[in-house]
Amino acid sequence: MADSAAKREADSAGTDELAQRVKRAKADNENGGGGAGKDPECENILSEFKTSAVLSDSAREKNIFIRGKLAGQEAVVILEKTPIREDSLAELFSGSRLKLEMRNDIYSTYRLQAPPQLNEIKTTVVCPATEKHVKKYQRQESFLVEETGEDYQSITLPYIQKQSFSVQWVHNILEKKAEVERIVFEDPDPKVGFVLLPDFKWDQKQVDDLYLIAIAQQRDIRSLRDLTPEHLPLLQNVFQKGKEAVLQRYKLPASKLRVYLHYQPSYYHLHVHFTKLGYEAPGCGVERAHLLADVIQNLQSDPRYYKTRTLYFPLRADDGLLGKFKEAERL
Amino acid sequence: MADSAAKREADSAGTDELAQRVKRAKADNENGGGGAGKDPECENILSEFKTSAVLSDSAREKNIFIRGKLAGQEAVVILEKTPIREDSLAELFSGSRLKLEMRNDIYSTYRLQAPPQLNEIKTTVVCPATEKHVKKYQRQESFLVEETGEDYQSITLPYIQKQSFSVQWVHNILEKKAEVERIVFEDPDPKVGFVLLPDFKWDQKQVDDLYLIAIAQQRDIRSLRDLTPEHLPLLQNVFQKGKEAVLQRYKLPASKLRVYLHYQPSYYHLHVHFTKLGYEAPGCGVERAHLLADVIQNLQSDPRYYKTRTLYFPLRADDGLLGKFKEAERL
Repeated sequence: MADSAAKREADSAGTDELAQRVKRAKADNENGGGGAGKDPECENILSEFKTSAVLSDSAREKNIFIRGKLAGQEAVVILEKTPIREDSLAELFSGSRLKLEMRNDIYSTYRLQAPPQLNEIKTTVVCPATEKHVKKYQRQESFLVEETGEDYQSITLPYIQKQSFSVQWVHNILEKKAEVERIVFEDPDPKVGFVLLPDFKWDQKQVDDLYLIAIAQQRDIRSLRDLTPEHLPLLQNVFQKGKEAVLQRYKLPASKLRVYLHYQPSYYHLHVHFTKLGYEAPGCGVERAHLLADVIQNLQSDPRYYKTRTLYFPLRADDGLLGKFKEAERL
Repeated sequence: MADSAAKREADSAGTDELAQRVKRAKADNENGGGGAGKDPECENILSEFKTSAVLSDSAREKNIFIRGKLAGQEAVVILEKTPIREDSLAELFSGSRLKLEMRNDIYSTYRLQAPPQLNEIKTTVVCPATEKHVKKYQRQESFLVEETGEDYQSITLPYIQKQSFSVQWVHNILEKKAEVERIVFEDPDPKVGFVLLPDFKWDQKQVDDLYLIAIAQQRDIRSLRDLTPEHLPLLQNVFQKGKEAVLQRYKLPASKLRVYLHYQPSYYHLHVHFTKLGYEAPGCGVERAHLLADVIQNLQSDPRYYKTRTLYFPLRADDGLLGKFKEAERL
């Protein structure tokens, strides 16, 4: 799982990098790089590019990472559409063609065909590209897995136990052997206590993308599946004191926070995510996140909720656990 | 199912006009919508659009929401660049102009100017637009609201009833007065039936960002809060037949789908979202989305689950409902 956590970080580094590129491109544009006449025209070296595979793409971010051959060499080409600029709207509206798609009541949709210079695609070429470049941009497909209580006992739990993923780094934090200076709040109680600290993904430069992790002092709770009503004091303590600590340190009230657990988690030592509402943190989707407030209510109304309930979660194609579900013909 | 769907399509094409629309929609689909010559050209109504304000935009998602005047009426125009399609890459590489920006070692960046028909901008026009539309698209801070069962009865329900938001466009779809040719699947049963069609946000050019909506035929279910075990046959029917229809039409199995409801929904007529797993669809976060599979389990284990449970959801600063929660000192 350390592997897959590292991979995820690599993924998000990829998007961060792209975001920075977009930001830079925007700045370039604002600095008057706009006039087509001034630009250095160049030979279209991509006209001879031969695509061999799409490594990944994002319909939401309008980008695509492609592997192929350029003049006989391995290459990676990254395309990303550019943000829509306010200062080009008038020209865009006057200079484009419109094609009607659909009309219903007050709503209508069109396909707008814009002059090419107003609608550029940011293009990055890596050539020659190595296997490392290719892997960096390769996305893994995910599959939604349906795990009954029995599936957990017969497939997931044996897999977790056999892997015995190391959580030494978690113990180092709890024992103050590492990251001591990063701790935002600590409750040392062995039963209900926890340590709150910033997630690695957060650079702590602004609260817009606030991301903290609360790590339980108790070491024998692997995940949601282990939770019973005896853990309610722990969960309520994390919820209450965690929110207070965030308010005190970052001036963010509880109404600005999304507090949740992951299932499957990326490491099997109970931890809770605190992210800012409105920040679309990776992993905050309904298919993986469980609001702590809901977890508490569920345990209050049904002591065996997480023992018996069918849970759904995504697994990447290269995840060993997915293989186990396939072997068991549960996918 | 293909047969009966085809039959239904033929049946619904009662008038010549409808028959033509169905034929056109079909031809468009088969041709991938690509050929510029075949498309319904229309007057560029946006050439006279006067922008008054940018309501919001996203550099990440490459979209912009604009308020302005169209033929003397208030209008909202939404532009969003389209995802990059794998099947158009060869044409894109051969038919574009490249402008060099930067070269460093194995890395180089360019601005690519593509043929307009390969690089369209999805355009949605709301006209005439009301203050409500403007507010809907205006970027706003959000607050997480905690709604108990009693809060729903005393705050939320009276507010919804008083507002009486129009769902005329939903009724138009159910009555085949609009969007007939967009229907992907239909079950006409008045109790358990539904209509499945693409969400406006999806341009249907690639399945990477697949987004469909299933709209219940029943008109008296406002939201999650109205659901009781009597609706289980409806929910199970939507889940089962919706997944089958997506598999048949788009070749996406259930393990690739995220199927969920929103609470609060954006309109109070029961509907279910089908999006592709891995596509971070707006609104798929744990704070607003509820997996249909969980909803079904919850109603099976507790008939009064959605009457009694405290639910959490984000509301925007300008949402009237947020004001009501503030008045009641529930925030």
